[in-house]
Amino acid sequence: MLRRVPPGDNLPRWVCDACGEIHYQNPKLVVGTVPEHAGRILLCRRAIEPRYGYWTLPAGYMENAETTAQAALRETQEEAGAHIELGAPCALISIPYVSQVHLFYRARLLNLDFKPGDETLEVALYEEARIPWKDIAFRTVGQTLKHWFADRRAGITSFHTEDIER
Amino acid sequence: MLRRVPPGDNLPRWVCDACGEIHYQNPKLVVGTVPEHAGRILLCRRAIEPRYGYWTLPAGYMENAETTAQAALRETQEEAGAHIELGAPCALISIPYVSQVHLFYRARLLNLDFKPGDETLEVALYEEARIPWKDIAFRTVGQTLKHWFADRRAGITSFHTEDIER
Repeated sequence: MLRRVPPGDNLPRWVCDACGEIHYQNPKLVVGTVPEHAGRILLCRRAIEPRYGYWTLPAGYMENAETTAQAALRETQEEAGAHIELGAPCALISIPYVSQVHLFYRARLLNLDFKPGDETLEVALYEEARIPWKDIAFRTVGQTLKHWFADRRAGITSFHTEDIER
Repeated sequence: MLRRVPPGDNLPRWVCDACGEIHYQNPKLVVGTVPEHAGRILLCRRAIEPRYGYWTLPAGYMENAETTAQAALRETQEEAGAHIELGAPCALISIPYVSQVHLFYRARLLNLDFKPGDETLEVALYEEARIPWKDIAFRTVGQTLKHWFADRRAGITSFHTEDIER
């Protein structure tokens, strides 16, 4: 593989020096949810790196052939074993220095039969005053939680877009 | 390259049989704008396949190391030579059968000094009654335009999420 600008393009791409195929690399979408039950939010403690042992919202890489809503439901099921009803999107956050875009949906827990998946140490419900802010795994998760609680105080469900710089 | 399920994964991936590197393939984000001037919308007639000669909103693949807002500004500049001020997102549409997610921002044209880029035959402003609905290149573009005009009639700027099936 060589890195060069293909004809008609204006950015260097990885090009196979044997077959000439161009391997485009584009930002990845990470999709998750803010699952709520009676005012408390479901968080997952990570059983994998990066950020082993820190708390996160259920989220993960969107897969080919699925919709953003399907990705949100799947990740919430895989990481927290949680059954949810999806609501409106809450936040769309670009992280250009890792070429990722994170999308979080509001969600309502349908029951309390959740249990940690393979990538999760434990799953718990937190009211706002008890959110472990210092032990949140990722800045996008902290920002999304802040937007969610601010919206709840204001009695609205708005959609937040922002960027996180290094 | 072989297609197999890596350890700890649950989906088949392309794995290099020489070096073992896993080549994940994930959905691509296409980002664009709905540029408006005095109630008219800027459209571009495509100079490339697919859908050569059909009308579209300025949009294209998001690149690594940029934000969604930067991608929207860049594509609008590249395809329409247009200078815009970005507004709130208008629509986020999943197209699972091509593994794409399309995101369109509202935008305001700052001046009328637009001109077609390399991938565009012509650029024009259309009022709602003259939108060439039968010659719109992509369903995501048609849906986004419908949402934009419906919001304008209702006097709101809402955010629309939907999926397009084959």
